[in-house]
Amino acid sequence: MSFTPSVSQEKLVEYRRAFHQHAESGLSEFWTTAYLAKELAAAGFDVKVGHEIFDVSKRMGLPDEATQQARLEAALAQGADPEWIARMDGITGLVVDLRPDLPMHTVLRFDIDAVDVDESAANEHLPAREGFRSINNCECHACAHDGHATIGLGTALEMLRYKDQLKHNVRIIFEPAEEGSRGAAPMVSAGVVEGAKYFFAAHIGVNAQQDHALVCGTQGFLATTKFDVEFFGRASHSGADPHEGKNSLLAAASATLNMHAIPRHGRGNTRVTVGRVESGTGRNVIPSYAKLCCETRGESTEINEYMFEKAKLIVEHSAGMYEQDYKITVMGKSDTAVSDWPMIELVKKVSEDVPYFHRDLLVEMGQGFGSDDANAFIQAIQKQGGYGTYAQIGSYLPVGHHNQRFDFNEDLLQPAVELCCRMAMAMDALD
Amino acid sequence: MSFTPSVSQEKLVEYRRAFHQHAESGLSEFWTTAYLAKELAAAGFDVKVGHEIFDVSKRMGLPDEATQQARLEAALAQGADPEWIARMDGITGLVVDLRPDLPMHTVLRFDIDAVDVDESAANEHLPAREGFRSINNCECHACAHDGHATIGLGTALEMLRYKDQLKHNVRIIFEPAEEGSRGAAPMVSAGVVEGAKYFFAAHIGVNAQQDHALVCGTQGFLATTKFDVEFFGRASHSGADPHEGKNSLLAAASATLNMHAIPRHGRGNTRVTVGRVESGTGRNVIPSYAKLCCETRGESTEINEYMFEKAKLIVEHSAGMYEQDYKITVMGKSDTAVSDWPMIELVKKVSEDVPYFHRDLLVEMGQGFGSDDANAFIQAIQKQGGYGTYAQIGSYLPVGHHNQRFDFNEDLLQPAVELCCRMAMAMDALD
Amino acid sequence: MSFTPSVSQEKLVEYRRAFHQHAESGLSEFWTTAYLAKELAAAGFDVKVGHEIFDVSKRMGLPDEATQQARLEAALAQGADPEWIARMDGITGLVVDLRPDLPMHTVLRFDIDAVDVDESAANEHLPAREGFRSINNCECHACAHDGHATIGLGTALEMLRYKDQLKHNVRIIFEPAEEGSRGAAPMVSAGVVEGAKYFFAAHIGVNAQQDHALVCGTQGFLATTKFDVEFFGRASHSGADPHEGKNSLLAAASATLNMHAIPRHGRGNTRVTVGRVESGTGRNVIPSYAKLCCETRGESTEINEYMFEKAKLIVEHSAGMYEQDYKITVMGKSDTAVSDWPMIELVKKVSEDVPYFHRDLLVEMGQGFGSDDANAFIQAIQKQGGYGTYAQIGSYLPVGHHNQRFDFNEDLLQPAVELCCRMAMAMDALD
Amino acid sequence: MSFTPSVSQEKLVEYRRAFHQHAESGLSEFWTTAYLAKELAAAGFDVKVGHEIFDVSKRMGLPDEATQQARLEAALAQGADPEWIARMDGITGLVVDLRPDLPMHTVLRFDIDAVDVDESAANEHLPAREGFRSINNCECHACAHDGHATIGLGTALEMLRYKDQLKHNVRIIFEPAEEGSRGAAPMVSAGVVEGAKYFFAAHIGVNAQQDHALVCGTQGFLATTKFDVEFFGRASHSGADPHEGKNSLLAAASATLNMHAIPRHGRGNTRVTVGRVESGTGRNVIPSYAKLCCETRGESTEINEYMFEKAKLIVEHSAGMYEQDYKITVMGKSDTAVSDWPMIELVKKVSEDVPYFHRDLLVEMGQGFGSDDANAFIQAIQKQGGYGTYAQIGSYLPVGHHNQRFDFNEDLLQPAVELCCRMAMAMDALD
Repeated sequence: MSFTPSVSQEKLVEYRRAFHQHAESGLSEFWTTAYLAKELAAAGFDVKVGHEIFDVSKRMGLPDEATQQARLEAALAQGADPEWIARMDGITGLVVDLRPDLPMHTVLRFDIDAVDVDESAANEHLPAREGFRSINNCECHACAHDGHATIGLGTALEMLRYKDQLKHNVRIIFEPAEEGSRGAAPMVSAGVVEGAKYFFAAHIGVNAQQDHALVCGTQGFLATTKFDVEFFGRASHSGADPHEGKNSLLAAASATLNMHAIPRHGRGNTRVTVGRVESGTGRNVIPSYAKLCCETRGESTEINEYMFEKAKLIVEHSAGMYEQDYKITVMGKSDTAVSDWPMIELVKKVSEDVPYFHRDLLVEMGQGFGSDDANAFIQAIQKQGGYGTYAQIGSYLPVGHHNQRFDFNEDLLQPAVELCCRMAMAMDALD
Repeated sequence: MSFTPSVSQEKLVEYRRAFHQHAESGLSEFWTTAYLAKELAAAGFDVKVGHEIFDVSKRMGLPDEATQQARLEAALAQGADPEWIARMDGITGLVVDLRPDLPMHTVLRFDIDAVDVDESAANEHLPAREGFRSINNCECHACAHDGHATIGLGTALEMLRYKDQLKHNVRIIFEPAEEGSRGAAPMVSAGVVEGAKYFFAAHIGVNAQQDHALVCGTQGFLATTKFDVEFFGRASHSGADPHEGKNSLLAAASATLNMHAIPRHGRGNTRVTVGRVESGTGRNVIPSYAKLCCETRGESTEINEYMFEKAKLIVEHSAGMYEQDYKITVMGKSDTAVSDWPMIELVKKVSEDVPYFHRDLLVEMGQGFGSDDANAFIQAIQKQGGYGTYAQIGSYLPVGHHNQRFDFNEDLLQPAVELCCRMAMAMDALD
Repeated sequence: MSFTPSVSQEKLVEYRRAFHQHAESGLSEFWTTAYLAKELAAAGFDVKVGHEIFDVSKRMGLPDEATQQARLEAALAQGADPEWIARMDGITGLVVDLRPDLPMHTVLRFDIDAVDVDESAANEHLPAREGFRSINNCECHACAHDGHATIGLGTALEMLRYKDQLKHNVRIIFEPAEEGSRGAAPMVSAGVVEGAKYFFAAHIGVNAQQDHALVCGTQGFLATTKFDVEFFGRASHSGADPHEGKNSLLAAASATLNMHAIPRHGRGNTRVTVGRVESGTGRNVIPSYAKLCCETRGESTEINEYMFEKAKLIVEHSAGMYEQDYKITVMGKSDTAVSDWPMIELVKKVSEDVPYFHRDLLVEMGQGFGSDDANAFIQAIQKQGGYGTYAQIGSYLPVGHHNQRFDFNEDLLQPAVELCCRMAMAMDALD
Repeated sequence: MSFTPSVSQEKLVEYRRAFHQHAESGLSEFWTTAYLAKELAAAGFDVKVGHEIFDVSKRMGLPDEATQQARLEAALAQGADPEWIARMDGITGLVVDLRPDLPMHTVLRFDIDAVDVDESAANEHLPAREGFRSINNCECHACAHDGHATIGLGTALEMLRYKDQLKHNVRIIFEPAEEGSRGAAPMVSAGVVEGAKYFFAAHIGVNAQQDHALVCGTQGFLATTKFDVEFFGRASHSGADPHEGKNSLLAAASATLNMHAIPRHGRGNTRVTVGRVESGTGRNVIPSYAKLCCETRGESTEINEYMFEKAKLIVEHSAGMYEQDYKITVMGKSDTAVSDWPMIELVKKVSEDVPYFHRDLLVEMGQGFGSDDANAFIQAIQKQGGYGTYAQIGSYLPVGHHNQRFDFNEDLLQPAVELCCRMAMAMDALD
């Protein structure tokens, strides 16, 4: 297969910066979805959005109505196409098929959501310096999904040329809400990977933190549970009646400290994070409400389960200590999955034709970290007898993922598009 | 002195409910100040507002600019007079003099700010049921200052009749930001009680929690320091790089628990409250910032100082534990003061002419609780050789102060106005 | 009444130093009891010990059998009379009557136990320098009960001279285990103050921290509950199986911090102390047991009850957090009591004849602090229509009570004996 | 090599139970060392003990003098040979050489210390039921070192027969204080493995928790640091002067909770344990001293270093919070090491001749857990160009390591001795 790009590197950079500037949190990617839908429809794709691709009965972690409404309005104010917004019906993410007439076979997945981080305005931060810093407060592409959305769009557009050579359908999924592990399960439930045999996804960075590096497959992702905790207490005057209060903030502090102190597990890595706490109103009022946004992780589903069970115990008894009612709401959940060796070999082979990737910086099976919702797709496909892999595209990173100054090397965009196209063709060639 | 009210009980109830509905937090009482100023100016007073009565160099605990701007705009949208808003120049509170031509002598003080509490919408809560629940989110008259503003307005209007009988000036102060102990110090510094010899203030409720009760003076107020704590850490990916983060939320949790665990003091009562915490952005990001709104209290200035010193130590070392930069900002401060016996006797005497107050429910020296910024005025006047008292006007209270369902018995409004007028005349009669 | 001492100051100092050197913890005062019994019996008293004066069914906080056995053996090794030890039958404390033939009327109480503190060996500490530092490890007269035992012994011996002048019986009680509030209740239950009308006890120091000072009565003692907490978890290998453990030490740490953070009470002073924790065996073993020695206090019985209820809640849920079984054992308990004015007047009057006490350092009603088990006797006598007082005998104190360098001025011993004798005679003179 | 055992299984069981019953903590193995020395000397060995084999300047974690003295006396009382005790000069552990006349070549290591755990007295626990439960309080062979000492003794005795066939010296090391990682470093420093080329050690259990299983080599041991923390505060009366105290117990509680909450590391497993806390004296005295026995572990030396650095920070600032002086004493330290493949192959090969081990239960490279001080010997030998392995001898375990009911299947003793002898011969055969 010869590959002469039709989408220029300049155009890809332009896309990426547009996505970056309009960073949107999971399940709120209104502008991003509408933008992708409009571009792809204009190129001739029959774009699928809304309930067809997303089973809302499986949706977890939806922001509250007021937030969703505000973000929808912001997206429109920022130029989102109202027609696409209407067709989406409050659901973000989209799917396109290269050959809907042929049986399902090959899936490429790209995630499109941002992280809840306030992007840096410092001059040393390129998006700030070059003027494409996120215009949305506390929504920031600090995990390279702006790059992924760009590579997905580029791949779809390039693949149009090869459409007639395909022996099967090739489906391209733009997944919302990968952060928080909320996007894949409702898409799987809606049937978007039904019948698929081969799966490819790639993440910029992760453990490939050098330009020109490539990791062909990934193991070691952590299973994870995302959950919110609420404590409901009783307010009182802090000077006059502290003993009449039931202090939700103290319950939150105790839960936080003790959750972080959950014993390590002897069989593998664990994580626990209280990533956000909000509690109390006035300084001189005993706080009567607290909300914590939490997650646990584990090297296996069982180890994550251990962490989550202990966390629940601690929440229950922090509530008990301070006489609180409480509520735990699961907001997202993902298992771990390991890339399949046949797919790893395939990535290795096709990458040899993409000169950008240096052979001596190539790793076959790399270590993942954190969690990735791609696992839900991989597991579903593995269960139906198929194979999948999760690659890592190398980039020098000035700071780590989720930091407010996260950025990556845009030079990788066009080579990544080529890699995806070559993988799509190579997978299509398999039975 | 004979007293036939000219401001009807119905009118007073109307005022009270208007204040209640437009509850505004300390230093943001734009609507309230403009309303009072307009009414009093219409009655013929030369109303003093702005820098003349408030030394901004002594101001602590000012909300951030965006909040102030939003509240100012809300006040205007709610009908605040733009002319008065302009004259206030961002400063709330006001002062009127009954005889500015005569030397300073007598001061009455009324506080006008709300508490940072979300008012109850339950039907059992009278302001909700009767439709005058606060229209401002998380600003609520849960400490009866709506009643105080009403009594102050009523007193000023009634006193106009007695103006010509006065031998000295009688000044009526409407203090902003009593909550948080932020209003009195800048007013004292601007000279509003300079030359004053006698001081009277009254609070609805406190330890007078029975209808028809009256406490003539108060001791046992707690000295207090209000302060904000900020922690500045470093964000990182909670799954990939938890070890790279510097977790501000853990610092906040540790500071909260350990501050509440500061040893009790062997010489008297103490308090410590972290009334509000906010930390973190996304669930899967190590939190890099936390803010805590705190206060300490003590039975004496020395005991409060002990609490504040220990709290600072705990903040410093919670920061150290989690490698945070930190900042402590004092937002308010008040000392304790004890009412003077000659003034207590005077209250007792004039109350005999107000039939609403039952003699068998009268207490000479009552116990205060919490803190009151009136102490700053009392101390200033005591220092220049004068006397002051802080009375408590009895009311049945369905729930405690600062609770979201706080309310009081409106029947006390007209008797309280009469008491204030009689006290003003009685103080004026003294040398 | 004229008073010429028959027991010299030198003899009193000798007694005091003997008691000091043989400091014994509450319920283990074997040496001390035997010593007092032998001296008093030699002087002609019919000494009461054992079950007759102490109802073991009401005993709380008994040290474990091994400890008691070891202390009993140590007492014998240190010269305790084996005959008296046998008659005591494991019970410490004693009672003598001056006129057992006459009806019960007057009671003087002296406490004899030490504090669980390791006495200082520093040269600046007089008992160390002069060679009478406690020979018992972690048992130390850091609260002046060596002085009280001495004064009690001196008083009994002096009173023999006045025996025939008495109109009623005068009973002298040597109370064990005042620390921990464990001695009085079983004595009251055994009937030792049955029929008594007047009660006098005195403590060296407290708030009388000046030589020659005297406080005639006391109010403001704190009600208190003493309790032990045990957590029972599961051990595991800290490296291999931390997740298999149920960590008792983490439960203890969480209970400790959260107990100290129990909200202050708006109606009065509170205390909470975890005075001792022991948990864990090896460094690399998850601790499966923890024991905490705790106490709560409150300005009223109700406020102490509030503290204890909250503490129990925190213990229960610290156990729940870390999957522990737990046990709370009440080890002692005392209420608050206020001295009666008629008795205060009496102390004031008789002290005028003791030149050691300076009139300008005399306080009628003083403030107590901490708690004193004398309250159980006072309450019992007040309930049967009698009166009591708790005096404080002034002494300069180099450091505070319970500190390892606590000491007092021995000059007060003989004047204190005289005061007690004069009080005994004065009380006897009342109906 | 043919192998007909000369030391019977019954004799080995007898040895094992003797060691088990006389369990002694690290650096206090007086009875055990003397027993081994006497047996081995009687068999003809020239036993090395004392300073010759142990560099006291590198010794960490020595119990305090009183404890050591008490344990020494207990050992003598339990029948330890006074002559050997004298020669040991306070140092435990011993070394024997099979051919001291030949150059150093092969090393076998056996550890002999117990764990600080109170052994179960329950009937279901075989050592209790059969009467060989530890007679030493809180010293228990809960990690199978009684088995190791037995296998070492058996191996030495059996090897005497093969002595003349040896081409090099074979050294057998009985290491003290493997728990706490305190024994190997001083032995290495004294030169006991100088010149050695091959190293073999084996542990019963670990991840070989099935009878007849064998793991030939080990990776994944955790690097570890053992340390004690002491806080020095100030005592005061808990009721009267809580504010005068500097509460060491609160510092300990805060340090414990926050150490356990040290963020997980993104690059590998961590551990942190506060295995023992002792603080405070009396219930009503603010605790002025606390001691914590702690350890950190990490999947690499760097990760362990991360944990230890964070722990130090937390200790420092827990001290700062509660105004404590503090001291951190490193009590032990070990790195991680990975077994060498040539040695693993050798174990696999010789095990084929020991029918007890089932081929289908054989694992080449197994996972270690926790830490093992053998790593210090392996690293030293690897550094001088040699090879080592750490095998795991399978046994069903009723409960996990370090639990008070830990026990193993004695049937493995004779096969383990045979394995060691065969390994010694096989290693000797190498250059």
